[in-house]
Amino acid sequence: MPVVLAASVEHASVLLSLFLIIAAAKVMAEIFERLRQPAVVGEILAGVVIGPSVLGWVQPSDLIAVLAELGVIFLLFTVGLETKPQDIFRVGKKATLVAVLGVIFPFIAGYLIAMLWDGVFVEAMFVGAALVATSVGITARVLGSMGLLDKETARVILGAAVIDDILGLIILSVVSGIGTGGFNISGVAKTAGLAILFTVVVGLLGSRVMTRLAPRIDRLRVNKPFFNIGILLCFALSVVSIYFGVAAIIGAFLAGMALAEATEENEKMHQLTSGVTEFLVPFFLVNIGMQLDLSVFRDSSVIVLAAVITLAAVITKFIGGGLGAWGMTRREMSQIGVGMIPRGEVGIVVAQIGLGMAVISQQFFAAVLFMAVATTLIAPPLIKFFYSEDKNKDGIDDVIVDTDVSEDYARLG
Amino acid sequence: MPVVLAASVEHASVLLSLFLIIAAAKVMAEIFERLRQPAVVGEILAGVVIGPSVLGWVQPSDLIAVLAELGVIFLLFTVGLETKPQDIFRVGKKATLVAVLGVIFPFIAGYLIAMLWDGVFVEAMFVGAALVATSVGITARVLGSMGLLDKETARVILGAAVIDDILGLIILSVVSGIGTGGFNISGVAKTAGLAILFTVVVGLLGSRVMTRLAPRIDRLRVNKPFFNIGILLCFALSVVSIYFGVAAIIGAFLAGMALAEATEENEKMHQLTSGVTEFLVPFFLVNIGMQLDLSVFRDSSVIVLAAVITLAAVITKFIGGGLGAWGMTRREMSQIGVGMIPRGEVGIVVAQIGLGMAVISQQFFAAVLFMAVATTLIAPPLIKFFYSEDKNKDGIDDVIVDTDVSEDYARLG
Repeated sequence: MPVVLAASVEHASVLLSLFLIIAAAKVMAEIFERLRQPAVVGEILAGVVIGPSVLGWVQPSDLIAVLAELGVIFLLFTVGLETKPQDIFRVGKKATLVAVLGVIFPFIAGYLIAMLWDGVFVEAMFVGAALVATSVGITARVLGSMGLLDKETARVILGAAVIDDILGLIILSVVSGIGTGGFNISGVAKTAGLAILFTVVVGLLGSRVMTRLAPRIDRLRVNKPFFNIGILLCFALSVVSIYFGVAAIIGAFLAGMALAEATEENEKMHQLTSGVTEFLVPFFLVNIGMQLDLSVFRDSSVIVLAAVITLAAVITKFIGGGLGAWGMTRREMSQIGVGMIPRGEVGIVVAQIGLGMAVISQQFFAAVLFMAVATTLIAPPLIKFFYSEDKNKDGIDDVIVDTDVSEDYARLG
Repeated sequence: MPVVLAASVEHASVLLSLFLIIAAAKVMAEIFERLRQPAVVGEILAGVVIGPSVLGWVQPSDLIAVLAELGVIFLLFTVGLETKPQDIFRVGKKATLVAVLGVIFPFIAGYLIAMLWDGVFVEAMFVGAALVATSVGITARVLGSMGLLDKETARVILGAAVIDDILGLIILSVVSGIGTGGFNISGVAKTAGLAILFTVVVGLLGSRVMTRLAPRIDRLRVNKPFFNIGILLCFALSVVSIYFGVAAIIGAFLAGMALAEATEENEKMHQLTSGVTEFLVPFFLVNIGMQLDLSVFRDSSVIVLAAVITLAAVITKFIGGGLGAWGMTRREMSQIGVGMIPRGEVGIVVAQIGLGMAVISQQFFAAVLFMAVATTLIAPPLIKFFYSEDKNKDGIDDVIVDTDVSEDYARLG
């Protein structure tokens, strides 16, 4: 029956690759949990292992990229659902300072390293820009699984990540403008203005609008109205945010925050959303790992460059982010500093834009790619370390979170 | 900032099309619920409206096809979770008879219509084969949303759908063999034997194995162990089932059944799984609607052919399926008959195989495609009609299901 099989085997191979991704992620998560290491690190390494670098069982593809994007979108949506707007506004000043210093330090470091290496001006600007962005998904995942998303430092990190994204956009628009020779200050100002306008307006009004609409949502006839409205709002704001120049995950986070008060008591809606997140997040983590290209290390000079850039990325973000939280305890400053370290998919995107514009060389691209994945692997153990006392001290009573709920509760399911 | 935007606008357009699919599905579901019509019909029609036939806002794509496949896989997995193997075995004989008669009647009707029209032998065999398969996802969705999956008739339908799929495979392997001139009885016997072996072995042993493994699953360190193991088993059996010649949804259903006892009390695992299903099912339903090509109706003779085939498909499945349940009450026979009517994606796949082998003409392909979508639209109101008394009589106490849970409960979320 060759014909029938031919028609369905292609289907089977897609399903098989999805199975391999989830299986590898969960096996590695289990191993890392047993070693008392963060599960996310295991899941990212799963991507390195089954990806082109090592076994080559699964190749990066458009489909996997979309599932990965949906994974991080739902992750931030779920985190938003646990975060009321006033929680973020209350730490607004601190978050702004954390974001600004956490952007300036890495940018200067990246620029200087690239110039000293052998880079030209535009190239060095791009390397600096790639070191700026924070991938808040990783930190949110780790803190969520520890049940610590309601800590003040977690909120500072979330707020700073939103501002960080806007600052990253401004830097990228300046750098891209210089790269294409089309830089003009009014264009950059317009880009920045739109992004800030979108974020502030949705952040300020979203929750009020959704809380007012809640009784109407409750009267809808469609099944699971809050869950469905939540998904629609999440997709809508993700799409709109891209058109305003902000990352899709920022829109998803704002969508979650807008619904945080209206669905506070709605355990079921949170569970349903959490199911989607749990299913999709492994694609996000594995996909990061699959981006790592170990073959660049045949060239030993790239190893040095990658190591230097990675070290600079970790230290400058830790110091910059930490100093921004001046006035808090030293431990809290450290918690915020490490929380800002992961660059993940955001750093990769910036590097890809530079490569697409042919303004950065293959060696800088490879080094930045390595830095993006490496910071994402280095940060979770540091986060776990600096937050470990909080967890022991406050216990699970303090846990309101459901990205991963407290570990005790999450054991079920 | 044209470069940055160009890089993300493609992303935005993918997210936008996913948003449009969910939004259209939910708006139509709401409208149909208000008209007291089945929501699934609204969601399929949403696909007709936003698809190439009418507005052309969203085009069928590989990505949407994969999401649709995942949707029906999770749907059957969720239904399996609510179905213990003995529930199916207990109605095994009835289900077999329902499947056999529900296959013979439509096959003969399709064959005769095609021969009388102007079809050649192989072509007529293919049209017959396309009328055979039942798309159990639609029926499961409707019964699930009414909270009636634990009815005996629902179990007969589920059991019959599994057997139906194997019978469909055998017929398709015979027909394809004839089409390619490579027909041999031993090949068909081997195909059939493997499919039956797989289904029976997994059906018999799956639940015992998973119930025995349950304490070990409970001891895993990974978060949400039952949910994650469930997803892995679902994907694994979906893939393996394809290699055994059975549809992926049969593997997913068997995976759910294997876990039904072990997770019976695990409300949280069911909620998490239900979240994934709820998110993905609209893609399955909308994708069916998007397949409809209304432009074929420029040729009036195709209209007649499509109408005749659709009518035959409805009547023969209703009578064949119903007669198979001989010995039950007339209402129960009708319930089973209507439950077998939807052809959905299965009929479409058979027609596509025939088209791919160049053994069926465009007019028959168009008519079968129409029949597949039309039966899927016609069945839900009939199912709702024939089951309406059960729902009123027994009330929600009878509801254990969570595909959509009882409507009262499902209102939350």
